[in-house]
Amino acid sequence: MFLDAASGEPMDPVAREAYLAALEDGWADADRLYREGRRARMLLDAAREAVAEVIGARPDETVFTPSGTTAIHAAVAGITQSRSLRAGGVGGPRIVTGAVEHSAVLHAAEFTAARVGGERVSVPVSRYGAVDLDALAAALTTGGTASPAVALACVQAANHEVGTLQPVERAWELCADAGVPLLVDAAAALGRIPAPRYWSALCGSARKWGGPSGVGVLAVRKGTRFAPAWPEDERERGRSPGPVNVPAVLAAAAALRARESERDTVAARHRELVDRIRARVAESVPDVEIVGDPERRLPHIVTFSCLYAEGEALLLELDKAGFSVSSGSSCTASTLTPSHVLESMGVLSHGNVRVSLPWGITAEDVDRFLDVLPGVVAAVRAQAPSTLTAVAAAVATAAESAASEPEPTTGQQTSATAVVINALGRKCPIPVIELAKHIDDVPIGGTISVLADDVAARLDIPAWCRMREQTYLGEEPVPERGADAVAYLVRRDR
Amino acid sequence: MFLDAASGEPMDPVAREAYLAALEDGWADADRLYREGRRARMLLDAAREAVAEVIGARPDETVFTPSGTTAIHAAVAGITQSRSLRAGGVGGPRIVTGAVEHSAVLHAAEFTAARVGGERVSVPVSRYGAVDLDALAAALTTGGTASPAVALACVQAANHEVGTLQPVERAWELCADAGVPLLVDAAAALGRIPAPRYWSALCGSARKWGGPSGVGVLAVRKGTRFAPAWPEDERERGRSPGPVNVPAVLAAAAALRARESERDTVAARHRELVDRIRARVAESVPDVEIVGDPERRLPHIVTFSCLYAEGEALLLELDKAGFSVSSGSSCTASTLTPSHVLESMGVLSHGNVRVSLPWGITAEDVDRFLDVLPGVVAAVRAQAPSTLTAVAAAVATAAESAASEPEPTTGQQTSATAVVINALGRKCPIPVIELAKHIDDVPIGGTISVLADDVAARLDIPAWCRMREQTYLGEEPVPERGADAVAYLVRRDR
Repeated sequence: MFLDAASGEPMDPVAREAYLAALEDGWADADRLYREGRRARMLLDAAREAVAEVIGARPDETVFTPSGTTAIHAAVAGITQSRSLRAGGVGGPRIVTGAVEHSAVLHAAEFTAARVGGERVSVPVSRYGAVDLDALAAALTTGGTASPAVALACVQAANHEVGTLQPVERAWELCADAGVPLLVDAAAALGRIPAPRYWSALCGSARKWGGPSGVGVLAVRKGTRFAPAWPEDERERGRSPGPVNVPAVLAAAAALRARESERDTVAARHRELVDRIRARVAESVPDVEIVGDPERRLPHIVTFSCLYAEGEALLLELDKAGFSVSSGSSCTASTLTPSHVLESMGVLSHGNVRVSLPWGITAEDVDRFLDVLPGVVAAVRAQAPSTLTAVAAAVATAAESAASEPEPTTGQQTSATAVVINALGRKCPIPVIELAKHIDDVPIGGTISVLADDVAARLDIPAWCRMREQTYLGEEPVPERGADAVAYLVRRDR
Repeated sequence: MFLDAASGEPMDPVAREAYLAALEDGWADADRLYREGRRARMLLDAAREAVAEVIGARPDETVFTPSGTTAIHAAVAGITQSRSLRAGGVGGPRIVTGAVEHSAVLHAAEFTAARVGGERVSVPVSRYGAVDLDALAAALTTGGTASPAVALACVQAANHEVGTLQPVERAWELCADAGVPLLVDAAAALGRIPAPRYWSALCGSARKWGGPSGVGVLAVRKGTRFAPAWPEDERERGRSPGPVNVPAVLAAAAALRARESERDTVAARHRELVDRIRARVAESVPDVEIVGDPERRLPHIVTFSCLYAEGEALLLELDKAGFSVSSGSSCTASTLTPSHVLESMGVLSHGNVRVSLPWGITAEDVDRFLDVLPGVVAAVRAQAPSTLTAVAAAVATAAESAASEPEPTTGQQTSATAVVINALGRKCPIPVIELAKHIDDVPIGGTISVLADDVAARLDIPAWCRMREQTYLGEEPVPERGADAVAYLVRRDR
């Protein structure tokens, strides 16, 4: 069962039909004067009007790009470029982004800012992942007055990983006061909730609303300056590099329209299903943290993290059981660091599972997942002992070698009030598992110090303390144990 | 009947089937670990192998982009960027291109060179449109030794407008000697002739081989330095911005494979059909110039220009008669200047028609076109009288006003040995039509001077002289008649 709609859904049957029809009538180059070209142009114009209406833009503000990523690249580069051309050399323009924006926004902002000698400024978020408006206001101004050095601000409509809605309307007011254009990445939101109304530029991706791959949308409000940052191209008002994929655009428009017409009904059903997941997961899976705003959220996304479980192992076990989900944990696929979203929120990063509901999912589907999940989590956690045996062996070896060394932090050392755990070289979630195993080795009021060099520990040990009501005292580097070695200090409170 | 295959064909049925199959099995994000993602990855890998085999590349040298245009942008920027990073400040890198490259190559080269403080250097072509190898060699070297300032050379496999094959293998040898990477734009050639074998980077577009919109291919040979000039993206080795459209890539691979298997048979048939068009057009349409190499050419493209006829009018009349062709003439659609290809070749630019044969065309189709063409050309030329009446009226008025002016070049003035024609403010082909009408007003050995401000006259008057065996003497500006006013001097020889 596919539960990763937020990464892109199968193409909606409506879109499939529209695509096939467009292969007959809309396959030609829409810039040509002959009949096939004119027909493609007519269809493209109709698709543009349909999409523009849904996103609350004028057709002449709306262009199609080859992907949501391209739309974001184009918007960030095009607006920044026009503003930095205008501002001249005021010390390099800044691009202000929320800390939990999609990686395409962060990469585009960093790349574009660097190219014009500026920098990206990150605005922190709450524990739920909502952008901090006071921090945003501060980033947009210098000493209380609008800063001419800020070229662009980027705030998503809703977070793609945890579903939290962003305060876009308030962000827009702050940007308007500061005279800074606001780019709203609405990729996770379009088709699921009403399109945001306040923005200078808006981006979306058809794959997220049941349209085909190969279509992004970029709307730029009249009056927003825009200077393309790529080679000259006369198509799509020069705002998208390369030709328009007319059949795919028609399919995208058909899907968006179809979804809009059912949106509120489906969203209400999804909201209930997500409520059910939130409740059942909290109740049936021990040691779990459900992340993201429980109320101000997208209807179809729910994310939770399971203590003492490895994210990739959860994904693979769920896949074996027939469920496809995604994860923001490190140690999944090619990423070695946890999701920047979870990191910015300061929540547990290991054992992470994102469930995002495809359009036609049923309550029975969700129940099947909920029936299987606790057993899968338990099985993944049960795999741990073998790993822990290896750890215990490593620790023992380290302790032995420590016996011949003067350095007291080597190995594991127990005293009345302090314990040192060696988890160096061990990946998440081992450091937290070791901490949990050994917390009772010190009396209440005593401290335990976990040596670790996996970056996820920085997130997971404080998160564990919060979940377990222990006190996290802080960290200190231990350079004599390695360049990345850090000691995390915890006080046992209960 | 669609005769503009070089702009992109309808999707091949094989590609349509592959796309529909991929919507079932290859719709998911190929970077995901679950079954749907793994299946998409397998299909994508298979498509990559198939395309790589056809283009003579290794799969790990081959990436997919959202279009042929994007592939070109990526190649030009990526290679230039890596070379200019390496070379440091040697006075700005140069990008050497043939004069008749696709506009996407010219725009990318100009944009990229400007961005790194360099420039594009254009290499002239022969009357047939083949790149001048001596000029290429000179552009690649400084005083006979390899120039470190040349970052990249771009030579297409074959010209997209007139079909002429380029001497790519010789160009490659010159580039290798000079230590300059060679980008070969093979968009017009792939699927029609064997893929070029000698290149540092190769680009193509699936639309040109019966694949879907939304797929370009970029191959970069091992050992060619490449530094992406866009925001970080882990997909497609960072060589294509944004995600891969897996279903479209599968369709593209299926189409390319199918075409390769029939290629030589179809090419032989097309070559005969083009020979027939070349012969019949020359025979049945008076005052026509067939452009491009008659032998070293793509099998499916033929281009000719009809004296005294307006390109856009030809296109529209052919469209009314049911034939869809393209034109490199100015005054078509939104362009106001003639095609840079025709201009660089120094051939007649008005009344231009490009016929490019779709895959399944029959001899009967071609004959129907050839039956209709002479009548259409005659009808378009016959429209001229009304225009010419207007011209004649304008000329008369000008002549009248000239009577009250001391300036002898005003209006039309006849003497024993010299005539001045006023075609100021008249668009192509009026200046040439006026020239043809009045050439007999001077005796053999006499001169005629055409005043014109349409840029196409610069191309068309010398071309007319060549076709008519008259001598073109040159041009001189006539600033007192307007900033763009030029007098073109012709000697009557027969």
